[in-house]
Parts: sequence; C-alpha cells; structure tokens
Amino acid sequence: MQTLKIFSDSPLSDSAETLLKEGVAPHEVIFATKTSVSVLSQADLDSKFATADIAFGQPDVASVLRSTRLRWIHLTSAGYTRYDDAEFRAAVKARGLPVTNSSGVYAEPCAEHVFAFMLAHARKLPLALKTNCPHGTDEWNKVRQGGVPLFKQKVVILGFGAIASRLMEMLRPFQMQIVALRRRPKGDEGIPIVTPEQLLQALADADHVINVLPDNAESVHFVNAERLAAMKPGAVFYNVGRGKTVDQNALLAALQSGRLEAAWLDVTDPEPLPPDHPLLTVPNCFITPHTAGGHRNESKSLVRHFLDNLRRFLDNAPLRDRIM
Amino acid sequence: MQTLKIFSDSPLSDSAETLLKEGVAPHEVIFATKTSVSVLSQADLDSKFATADIAFGQPDVASVLRSTRLRWIHLTSAGYTRYDDAEFRAAVKARGLPVTNSSGVYAEPCAEHVFAFMLAHARKLPLALKTNCPHGTDEWNKVRQGGVPLFKQKVVILGFGAIASRLMEMLRPFQMQIVALRRRPKGDEGIPIVTPEQLLQALADADHVINVLPDNAESVHFVNAERLAAMKPGAVFYNVGRGKTVDQNALLAALQSGRLEAAWLDVTDPEPLPPDHPLLTVPNCFITPHTAGGHRNESKSLVRHFLDNLRRFLDNAPLRDRIM
Repeated sequence: MQTLKIFSDSPLSDSAETLLKEGVAPHEVIFATKTSVSVLSQADLDSKFATADIAFGQPDVASVLRSTRLRWIHLTSAGYTRYDDAEFRAAVKARGLPVTNSSGVYAEPCAEHVFAFMLAHARKLPLALKTNCPHGTDEWNKVRQGGVPLFKQKVVILGFGAIASRLMEMLRPFQMQIVALRRRPKGDEGIPIVTPEQLLQALADADHVINVLPDNAESVHFVNAERLAAMKPGAVFYNVGRGKTVDQNALLAALQSGRLEAAWLDVTDPEPLPPDHPLLTVPNCFITPHTAGGHRNESKSLVRHFLDNLRRFLDNAPLRDRIM
Repeated sequence: MQTLKIFSDSPLSDSAETLLKEGVAPHEVIFATKTSVSVLSQADLDSKFATADIAFGQPDVASVLRSTRLRWIHLTSAGYTRYDDAEFRAAVKARGLPVTNSSGVYAEPCAEHVFAFMLAHARKLPLALKTNCPHGTDEWNKVRQGGVPLFKQKVVILGFGAIASRLMEMLRPFQMQIVALRRRPKGDEGIPIVTPEQLLQALADADHVINVLPDNAESVHFVNAERLAAMKPGAVFYNVGRGKTVDQNALLAALQSGRLEAAWLDVTDPEPLPPDHPLLTVPNCFITPHTAGGHRNESKSLVRHFLDNLRRFLDNAPLRDRIM
C-alpha cells in the first residue's frame, strides 16, 4: 500500500494530535501548525503542502488550486465560506477532488445550543435565575406565568443541513409543526420545505424562527426588515448560523418595538460586537459569543470524525459530510 | 340527571372561571375564593363545602373528612403533601372517595424546566450569556470548550411520576442511559428502576442526577451527605421536586468543594432562601424561584384538565392522575 501524506494545519490538543498520528498509521501526518506562522515562509509552506495527498484543516485556497497531488480535502469547520465560490467549485469538480467538512462534529453541540436557547426562553431562565422573590409577588408572577411550553408550537428553520436535521430529531417529542427553507431541496428532509416565496406566510405562523443559514453570496442580510416584519408578533428569533445573514439594524428595531418577543444569537456581525452596540443592551436580546459548536475535547472529535472518513476514503466508500 | 355542586377554592383568571362555569354546565360551581378570606367564617365555609359533591382546588383536610356528600376530590397541584398521610389515605379509601391531582398539567412545563436546566448547563449559558470577549481569549476558550453534549450521557432520576415520564420522552433523541428510583415500581416505567440499595452504584455512574421527589415522610433529606458523596465527581444535580428532600448544608459543601460541578434548583427550603443564604452566592448553584410548573394561562390549563376528568367521572370512566 502506498503511504499517504496528510497535511494538517489545525490547532489540535496534544491528545488529539497523538490520536491523529496513531489513527492514520501507516500513513503519515505533515503538521503545518506547529511551525508555520513563525518559521516557515509561504514558499516553504507551499512546498510542504505540495507533497500532501490529503488536506485536513483549513487549507489555503491558492495552495489547493496549485497542488497537483491532492486527492481529498477535509475541512475542520462546518462553515466553508472561503471555498464556496464558483471558481473553487469548478476547479475541484474538474479534478474530481472531493471536499468534506466537519458538520457531523458540530451538528450535535449546535443543535443542543439552539435547543438550549429555545428552552431557556420557554422557561424564562434569564429572569428566573436572577430573581429571589417570594411567591405571589408581581415579579414572581411575571416569571411563573410568563413561560410558554414548546409543546405543539410552530417553528420555521432557515437553512436545512446537519444542524437542522439533528434539531428536528430533538424536537420530535414536542410535536411541533416544523417547516424549513432549503437552498436546494433534496426530498430527504422529512419535513415540508418552503420556497423563499412561501416563506413569508410560514413566518407569519411561526412561534420560533431559527436561522442556521451559512454565510454565502445569497444569504447576506437574508433576515431583513421585510422578513422580520412578516414574523408573527411575539415570535422569537434565534441565530446559530452566521452573523452576516441578518440585517442587525432591522433586528434591533423589531426587538425595540416589541414586535419580536426576543432574539437569541450565537453569531453577530462583527464578533464580538463593539461594547456600545445596542444589541448588547436591548433587554430582549440574548447573545453567546459564537460558542454553539464548541465542546470539551473538540479537537479530538474533529480527529475522530476525520479518521472515520479516512477509513471510508481508503475503502473507496462514500465520504460523510461531502459538500463538493 | 342530578345537578352536581362543584366547590372551587383556587384563584382562577376571569377567563378560566368562565371556562369552568360553562364547562361544567348543567352542573354548578360554588366559588369559595372570591369571598372566603374576608367575609366567610369557617362555619360558613364548612356549610358551603358540606353541600359540594366534588371539590376542585386545595380543600381543607378537616372539611373533607367531615363531609358526608363528597364523591371526588381533584387537586389543583401536583404536590399533595397535606393529604399524604395514613389517616387521610385510610379515610378516603374507606369511603371509596377518589383523589386526583393536576400532575398532567405540570408534567410538560416541569419536564421542560429541568430539561432547560440540563441544556443550559451543557451549553454553559450562564457564563456564555454574560461574556462578550473576542474569540481565542482564555475567557472565550473556557466557554467554547466547557460544554459537554448531553448525547449518550448517563442520568439518574430520583422519583418516577408524570414529570419523569415526560422527561424520558424528551431525552429519547439524546440516547442517554437513564435509570430511576421509584417508591412503588409498577413495571410500566420503560427504563430500569433501581432500589434505594442499588442507588449508590447508579449515582457513581451518572453525569446528571435529577431529583423530582415529592415531599413526604420518607423523602425528607433523601439527598443527604452520603448520597451526595456517592455521586460521580463532576456530576450535575437538579431539583424540581421539593426543597425539603435535600440536605442543603451537604449540598452546599459538595458545591464548594467542587465535587459536584453544579446544582440547578427550582425548589429550596425555605422559599425564597434568605438573602444571605450561601447557596445564593456559591458560583456553581443556579436557582429559579419555584417556577418550573408555571406557564401562561396556567389556570385555564388546570380547568381544562379538571373538565376532562369531570367527563370521565360522569361517564364512570377511570380518572386521570388518580393518586388515591
């Protein structure tokens, strides 16, 4: 068997690095990260990359396009904005070069994160955790009587991929009515898919609008004033996709007017928001700092996911999380 | 058909009161609450109560025992400590007087509440919602890398009733390993039931220990120093049952030592805790003020649940949520 060279440029914990080296044997890992920034010039990096059969990480687009040897690219993120353009897609297609991402790693924590947002809202946790008032006071009644169970409520999901798919499984016991918007419907969604034209009507019905859109040319400010205005009064908006997909001024206005009951955001534009940004102080906006995909031993999860795909690659089996 | 008199002593919203009056017709509601405290003497109250065929609310134990007419008691709570003693149980049994509670109303919001706790913890929401730091800083890494997905983790539930049963349904997509402790196992639990003797071993394995025990003679300080010491280091403890079932000094010690990663409590003893109580300031204890069962239009939910049971009562069908 030919020994393959796997170029890895992602920061990994020591135990993840060990797992990677042992897991790929007898194939070989070329680590870029330990030395790249301080020691190697771009030319050195390129010459290292040029020997690689497989790229695991966030490889430089130009280096990928120059490489004549590369047979597979596995990205250590779920998002892939840098690679998501016509030129790159055409180049990898022409060379039959598969591109996979790590959405399988991030689907669980991201779906748990947005679900945590939904339940925290339904149970009024931000207010409830702050108050220590006696039963029966106005403040207590506000918390006690404020929550609306998720059971049988209506949901619109903007963007349907690994996160939405996992979230749907999680929501099943709540018997919610769920529809989703998907750029290219495949028929395997298991829930009704709406077109952008049908979306306004769906938004008018939904108690919860969940944005998991990726950042690309079509999604910039997709959640704009018109779509926010179409949402049901009192709806709750969530974003665990990308900050740029939302017109934040329009969102702020919808929160300030009380039209939206609340927004729960894991992503903003920029990140973090400047300290004086009004979304940080409007009382019905709750923000986490892009931590939805994170979890303990994240880099080991990434390596395990890559090793699983490497086995498939070596067996000529279909790769998981193939995006191109 | 004989017109039944239904004694109602619970505070209801106006719309819930209307729903009740219209829903029971042609039967009749005798409202105690509107007038009882300020106007009626105990003797007047008793004479009103003595004409009732059905009690809906939180009827006085002595009045129940004196009544010769009463045919059914439906409590507007899930807890029933006041009624849960041998004398009362014997009296209602001797008279064939069914007692039902409203656990069906509270199962959904209570299960959503404890699940909100679990996910908020898994996603580090208390810290994540407070921070606005740049990616890659120590503070950010702490949040980003701190969360542990619920997927496939291990759970012990103390107390198995309507809440635990609903929670189990909610946890199913997470493929968790769940065992429960139940006072009187019925074989319908769908998960392994442990005896108090087997509990220590189960606690040693569990990532999450969820207490939904009711308050009764057997449950006082059930969660004591010994059982807390048996829990796995780093476990998370939740309580949406009753405050008295926990030895709070022992809990505090387990939190201060870091033995438990955190506690999430909706109930304490007393409620609220005095402002200087150390559980309010220990950083890994998160408390909501007994709002787990609450929800918008709660009193309408209670009336609907009662009306559903009234139909069963009139049809001689088995009552829901029968406790005695």
